[in-house]
Amino acid sequence: MTIVKIIELVGVSKNGLQEAVENAVKDASKTIRNMRGVDILSWTGEIDGDKIVEYRANVKISFIVEER
Amino acid sequence: MTIVKIIELVGVSKNGLQEAVENAVKDASKTIRNMRGVDILSWTGEIDGDKIVEYRANVKISFIVEER
Amino acid sequence: MTIVKIIELVGVSKNGLQEAVENAVKDASKTIRNMRGVDILSWTGEIDGDKIVEYRANVKISFIVEER
Amino acid sequence: MTIVKIIELVGVSKNGLQEAVENAVKDASKTIRNMRGVDILSWTGEIDGDKIVEYRANVKISFIVEER
Amino acid sequence: MTIVKIIELVGVSKNGLQEAVENAVKDASKTIRNMRGVDILSWTGEIDGDKIVEYRANVKISFIVEER
Amino acid sequence: MTIVKIIELVGVSKNGLQEAVENAVKDASKTIRNMRGVDILSWTGEIDGDKIVEYRANVKISFIVEER
Amino acid sequence: MTIVKIIELVGVSKNGLQEAVENAVKDASKTIRNMRGVDILSWTGEIDGDKIVEYRANVKISFIVEER
Amino acid sequence: MTIVKIIELVGVSKNGLQEAVENAVKDASKTIRNMRGVDILSWTGEIDGDKIVEYRANVKISFIVEER
Amino acid sequence: MTIVKIIELVGVSKNGLQEAVENAVKDASKTIRNMRGVDILSWTGEIDGDKIVEYRANVKISFIVEER
Amino acid sequence: MTIVKIIELVGVSKNGLQEAVENAVKDASKTIRNMRGVDILSWTGEIDGDKIVEYRANVKISFIVEER
Amino acid sequence: MTIVKIIELVGVSKNGLQEAVENAVKDASKTIRNMRGVDILSWTGEIDGDKIVEYRANVKISFIVEER
Amino acid sequence: MTIVKIIELVGVSKNGLQEAVENAVKDASKTIRNMRGVDILSWTGEIDGDKIVEYRANVKISFIVEER
Repeated sequence: MTIVKIIELVGVSKNGLQEAVENAVKDASKTIRNMRGVDILSWTGEIDGDKIVEYRANVKISFIVEER
Repeated sequence: MTIVKIIELVGVSKNGLQEAVENAVKDASKTIRNMRGVDILSWTGEIDGDKIVEYRANVKISFIVEER
Repeated sequence: MTIVKIIELVGVSKNGLQEAVENAVKDASKTIRNMRGVDILSWTGEIDGDKIVEYRANVKISFIVEER
Repeated sequence: MTIVKIIELVGVSKNGLQEAVENAVKDASKTIRNMRGVDILSWTGEIDGDKIVEYRANVKISFIVEER
Repeated sequence: MTIVKIIELVGVSKNGLQEAVENAVKDASKTIRNMRGVDILSWTGEIDGDKIVEYRANVKISFIVEER
Repeated sequence: MTIVKIIELVGVSKNGLQEAVENAVKDASKTIRNMRGVDILSWTGEIDGDKIVEYRANVKISFIVEER
Repeated sequence: MTIVKIIELVGVSKNGLQEAVENAVKDASKTIRNMRGVDILSWTGEIDGDKIVEYRANVKISFIVEER
Repeated sequence: MTIVKIIELVGVSKNGLQEAVENAVKDASKTIRNMRGVDILSWTGEIDGDKIVEYRANVKISFIVEER
Repeated sequence: MTIVKIIELVGVSKNGLQEAVENAVKDASKTIRNMRGVDILSWTGEIDGDKIVEYRANVKISFIVEER
Repeated sequence: MTIVKIIELVGVSKNGLQEAVENAVKDASKTIRNMRGVDILSWTGEIDGDKIVEYRANVKISFIVEER
Repeated sequence: MTIVKIIELVGVSKNGLQEAVENAVKDASKTIRNMRGVDILSWTGEIDGDKIVEYRANVKISFIVEER
Repeated sequence: MTIVKIIELVGVSKNGLQEAVENAVKDASKTIRNMRGVDILSWTGEIDGDKIVEYRANVKISFIVEER
């Protein structure tokens, strides 16, 4: 039997929104296996002067827990 | 002291919405103890032809972590 | 002249989500007449072990108050 | 190339919430092919006396339009 | 007289979120004329390993129906 | 058997919010039959100087499709 | 001491949205005293042919209960 | 048999947000028995000069109606 | 280069909802130029006896700031 | 004639949620006159170790602009 | 590389809303390190007689997972 | 003492969503100093033919007002 769990995390990037989401998935892959889908909940950024210096993506990632 | 945590997961059933929620709780019980409540966030289904062949329930489950 | 009022209440059932809504309506019928419609706002449940032992449905019920 | 479209419709049943969703899918199948998923947006019902005499499910159904 | 209608559809891309929206519009243009605006409702993705292999954008597109 | 569908469209009027909704229904009646209900989702307007020169109403209209 | 309570009801009118809200307040005044404020939650209408034949306003009304 | 009802009211306090909620419950207790739970929907305040002179808490209170 | 800003304000009228929105725009025009669009966020009213004596419309107004 | 405007700002406090709201109002009073009401949109905090070291309250403040 | 995760939990207090949030953070600190921020999602309470005997705060806590 | 204010504005770009957000920040920097963070509220676009010819990002920008 398989269980689908959902975690929330924050992806971060200096280069853009797309990369922030990709990083969230890449980061999650270090501790989570069998990821299936990602939902983007919200986007934020940190500003320095007139530039966004850090992009952040709040995401939910679903993954499958194989039953032992 | 007791801590109440909340996790999100997806219950799945071939038979109906009610069973999808029951399965979410049953699935969660394999790794989580002391569950107290369940909140149903949303319902979806997968269609094949003119039938729903898989029902899914996104749920939040609260459980108590006994402090060691 | 007729007035349409809306009340919120919680239907409860040991057997399932559908019955929880039915009970909300049945319960309301003991004090309210001329009910017309029901809106289901949210579903929750109480867990004991690996089972849902009480299903709850938060509902809004609209009913008509006949003017005297 | 394939296009995924989404339509909203209302499933209706005299017997319960589950059947209302099933009917929405069955109804949609008369004019739409290649349906994939269903999202349940909200549940309502019509009351007569102390009973729900018609269950309704507002759903979104996604389907694939094969490009000619 | 002109009528403004709104449809919902899902844009898909292997390369990124931006392209998923562009594809939604390009896909819609095969069956719809006189499109005016697009609203992005939500973003999701499908994961394989540690990568997003499919980006999806749920969008609403408004278009003008010229009256005959 | 009857199927209840829901479409979204934008009603427009130079004279006011009420008329924008009425126009949405009137516009829809040119291509849709057996309309039953209308839900107003949001109101917007276009400004020129210190006046609203165009009122817009985003609406959802439900209608019945008679089965052939 | 004074208590502020809030009730929800539906105002109805054959003539327009504004009158539907006015009627909700007028209707409520038959059973409630010391009303203070009204919040409009949503607007709907019933359609016959290409016309809205009944306007409805879902409202919340706050009123003050003087303590005996 | 027991029926769980939900009412909405506004708690008021000159001293703070916490007391506004407590007052909502205390006020409700004058006309309602068997209250079980309170949900805080929103917080507002009235300002005079640079001070909040009245705190308000919009709350929903659930209570049990014992069947006669 | 042009910058589009958005402000929120409250339009007020003794006569009705439509006029409350118009007044919001008229009021804003005294300090803001180059207004383009208005979004109506919510409607409220103040009641005296069985009548609404003041209509209020919470609106967002977008306007263009010409760069010097 | 009077115009009611609404601004959004963040109140900050080292001591608690209530003081964060009070500070938002006190801060706003340095540049804004004739404030009337405050709406609390959301609460957040910054954590250091096992303590909240900064409380933040996102608020909307309405104020009256007297026409010259 | 650092990963920002988000968990949801319920803080509880007999004394008030502020302490319920503080307890959520204190509780979380027993199993989680490097917490950064807390978002308060909702407030509820349990009532006994005319008093709130338990305050609860649903919170999301973000924390940094140091990569090994 | 420092005050954190929040403004809403619309970033525009011919090239993509990311640039629309960057432009919102760049535009805001012409009249606002000490910007800290940006929240993306919603994305829209204007369509010509089968292409998005203008991307728009509705954003909230927080900035610090140094007290004189």
